[in-house]
Amino acid sequence: MESIKDKVAIVGMGCTKFGELWDKSVEDLIIDAAYEAFEDAGIEPKDVQAAWIGTANSGFTATSLTVPLKLDYIPATRVENLCATGSEALRAACYAVAAGAYDVVLALGVEKLKDALGPMTRAGTIAESGFATSAAFNADNPQAAAPAFALLATSYFQHYGVSPDEGKRYLAQVTVKNHHNGTLSPKAQFQREITLEQVINAPIIAWPLGLFDCCPVSDGAAAAIVTRADMARSFRDDPVKIKALEICVGARQGLRRTDYQWTHFEENVIASKRAYAGLGITDPLKEISMAEVHDCFTITETVIYEDFGFCPRGGAKEFVERGGSSLEGEIPVNTDGGLKCFGHPFGASGLRMMYEVYKQLQGKADRRQLKNVELGLTHNLGGGPGQAVVSVFIAGH
Amino acid sequence: MESIKDKVAIVGMGCTKFGELWDKSVEDLIIDAAYEAFEDAGIEPKDVQAAWIGTANSGFTATSLTVPLKLDYIPATRVENLCATGSEALRAACYAVAAGAYDVVLALGVEKLKDALGPMTRAGTIAESGFATSAAFNADNPQAAAPAFALLATSYFQHYGVSPDEGKRYLAQVTVKNHHNGTLSPKAQFQREITLEQVINAPIIAWPLGLFDCCPVSDGAAAAIVTRADMARSFRDDPVKIKALEICVGARQGLRRTDYQWTHFEENVIASKRAYAGLGITDPLKEISMAEVHDCFTITETVIYEDFGFCPRGGAKEFVERGGSSLEGEIPVNTDGGLKCFGHPFGASGLRMMYEVYKQLQGKADRRQLKNVELGLTHNLGGGPGQAVVSVFIAGH
Repeated sequence: MESIKDKVAIVGMGCTKFGELWDKSVEDLIIDAAYEAFEDAGIEPKDVQAAWIGTANSGFTATSLTVPLKLDYIPATRVENLCATGSEALRAACYAVAAGAYDVVLALGVEKLKDALGPMTRAGTIAESGFATSAAFNADNPQAAAPAFALLATSYFQHYGVSPDEGKRYLAQVTVKNHHNGTLSPKAQFQREITLEQVINAPIIAWPLGLFDCCPVSDGAAAAIVTRADMARSFRDDPVKIKALEICVGARQGLRRTDYQWTHFEENVIASKRAYAGLGITDPLKEISMAEVHDCFTITETVIYEDFGFCPRGGAKEFVERGGSSLEGEIPVNTDGGLKCFGHPFGASGLRMMYEVYKQLQGKADRRQLKNVELGLTHNLGGGPGQAVVSVFIAGH
Repeated sequence: MESIKDKVAIVGMGCTKFGELWDKSVEDLIIDAAYEAFEDAGIEPKDVQAAWIGTANSGFTATSLTVPLKLDYIPATRVENLCATGSEALRAACYAVAAGAYDVVLALGVEKLKDALGPMTRAGTIAESGFATSAAFNADNPQAAAPAFALLATSYFQHYGVSPDEGKRYLAQVTVKNHHNGTLSPKAQFQREITLEQVINAPIIAWPLGLFDCCPVSDGAAAAIVTRADMARSFRDDPVKIKALEICVGARQGLRRTDYQWTHFEENVIASKRAYAGLGITDPLKEISMAEVHDCFTITETVIYEDFGFCPRGGAKEFVERGGSSLEGEIPVNTDGGLKCFGHPFGASGLRMMYEVYKQLQGKADRRQLKNVELGLTHNLGGGPGQAVVSVFIAGH
C-alpha cells in the first residue's frame, strides 16, 4: 500500500494498564491513554484536528471520546471490526492523514468488558452464524470463542498427525512464554510466571484448550497520535513510521468454509502477503525483528506463525520447541505478554500491540527490550474469525 | 478540505425503498442497494477493492456486508456516528481513495429499525446523558428524541418572539412541503399529500412537536461506488464529484451547553462554514442549487436554514412562508421528501440524501427534477445532537 508507506507516522502513544479495572470508568481509561499519548507527542488536546475511537462491544460512540477529552467541534468517528477494532482506528486515522485531510489526529481504542452493559448482540450472532459452536460464542467474553478455536486445534492436530499429549504440551509452551513476557510488562493484566504443568493440568474450557490457553476478559485503552511523515521529526527525534497496513476480511469465515480443512487462516496469509509484497520482504523470519500477534488462544498464535511464514506449514510445534518466538528467539512474538497476559479489551488490543512495537523500536521497552529492532509487525484478528489486519512499523529516525 | 475536493467521485449509487420492510432482511437490503450501485457504475462485485458499512443501531458489523455480497478477502470496516452514520461511510471511503489506498470502493449504509434486536444501548445513554429528557431518548426510535428537539423549538420561539400558534403553523408548512415532495419519490416511505390542518391538529408527541413534525421509524439501505476522480469518466459520462466533506462533533452537545441559548446548532455552523470556505462560497442561497438536510423534526429543518445561511437568524418563519425551500423556491430543500417522508433508517440516511443529490445533478430525478442544478449539499446530523456532516457535490462532467 504505497499510500501509507511514506506518508504517515506515529509521534506519540499511550496505553493504560489492562485488567479488571473496577475503579476506572471508560472516560478514565480514555483520558489516561489519550493524555499519555499527548504528553509523549508533546502536544495539547487542542492540537488534535480529528479523532477516531475504536470500540467493539461496549456501546460507546464518537462523543464518548470527545466529551471526556473536551475535544470540541472536531471531527470524531467510531470504527468497529470486532476484535480487530483497535487496528481499524489507526487505519482510519492513517487514511485521513495520507489523504491530506488533517495533519495531527488521534486514534484511540477502548473497551470495558468487565462491566460492559452491552454484549455484541446481533454483531456477535451474525459474525458467527456459521459456527458449529455458535450458541457458545455469542458473548462479550473472549473465552466464549474457545469452542470454535478448539476445533481449529483438533483439525490441525488431525491434519499434521500431532498426538493429544504432544499438542497440549507445545501449546502450553506458548502460554509459558507469554506469561514470562508478562512478568516484564508493568501494564499487563497478568504479571506472573506459569509452569508447563499448570497450563497442561488446568481445567478444560473446550478440549484441547484449557483455561490457560485462553486470553482473559479485560478493560483497557490505548492511543496513538498520527501525523504526516514529513512533520514527524518536528514532534520528536524518534517517531515510528507505518510501512504497511493491510486488512483482509473473509466472506466465508473460519469454520463456515468448506473448501479447505481449517488448519490456517487464509485471511492472515493474504494480509501478510500484501504487506510483505509492498515492502519487498521475502524472508519474514530474517527480515522482521519482532511480532505482536493475536493470541486469543494458544492454537491461534501457533497457526499464525505458519500463516506469516515464520515457520513451514506443520512446523509450529518444532518452532515453539526450539524457542523460535521467545525473547531470545529468531523472531520474538508477543514480547509484552500478548492477549494472554497483557489482556484483551477488544477495541484496545490492536493499538496495544502497536504500543509495544513503538516502544521496542524506540529502545524504550525496559526489561523486555530486544536488540536490533528494525521492523516490527502487528497482527489483529477479528470476527468469525476472518478479519486479519497486518501492520508493519519501522523506526522513523 | 483540499484532499477530497479534486480526488474522489461517485460513479454509481443505489437506494432501496425505505419503510416498514417486514419482508426484507438486512441482507436483502444490502444486496438490493449494492447491486443497484454496481449496475449503475457498470461494475461487478469483484471490482470492489474495499468496503465500508455504516450502521448505527442494528448491531451489524463488517461481515454483515461482505457475507451477503460475497466480497471475499477484501478490506471491510464498520463506521458509526449515530444518525450521521451514513455520511461517515462515504467519508471513510473518500479518505481511503484520496489516500491512494484503493481505486474503487463501496460505501453502504443500512438500518433495520422496525425489527432491530439491539437498541443503541449505552451509545444512546452516553450520547444524551446531558439531556433534560434523557429517559425519553434512549430508544431506537427517532421520535424518542422529540422531547429534546421540542426544547429547541420552545427555546427558539421564546428567543425570537414567535407565538405558539405562529410556530405550529410555519413548522407545519415544512411537513406539507416534504409530504408533497414525497409524492414524487417512488422509494419514499410516505407518498401522500398532507394538509396544514392535519399537521397542526395531529396528536402532540412533545409540545410543540406533533406526530407529523417527527420523522418515522424505517428500514432501508443506500450505497455509493467511490473512485478516484481521474478515473470517474471511464465508468460513466456523468459522475458526481465530491467537493467538500466536513464534519464537526461537539463535545458539549445540544442541551448540555450552557454557554448559549439553544436556538441553533453550532456544529452545523462550523461544518458548513468549513465547507463554504473550501469552495469559496459566500452567498449559499444563490450559489447552492439544492440541499438535503437532516429534518428529523420540523424545527430541525428550519433551524438548519439559518445555520447554513439560507436565511438570516430568526428568519426561518418568513423563509418558510415565502416558500424559499419548496421545489420552486430559491433553494429547494429535501426534494425527495427528507427524513420526514423518505424515512430515517439511521445508517442509510446520509447516503440516501447523497442519492437524491446524485440523481438531481445527473438530471435523473424524474418528476422531482430541478432545473439548473450545479451544486448540491447534504447535511446529516447525529448524536446529542452534535455530529454535523456537511457534504457538497458537483456534476463531474
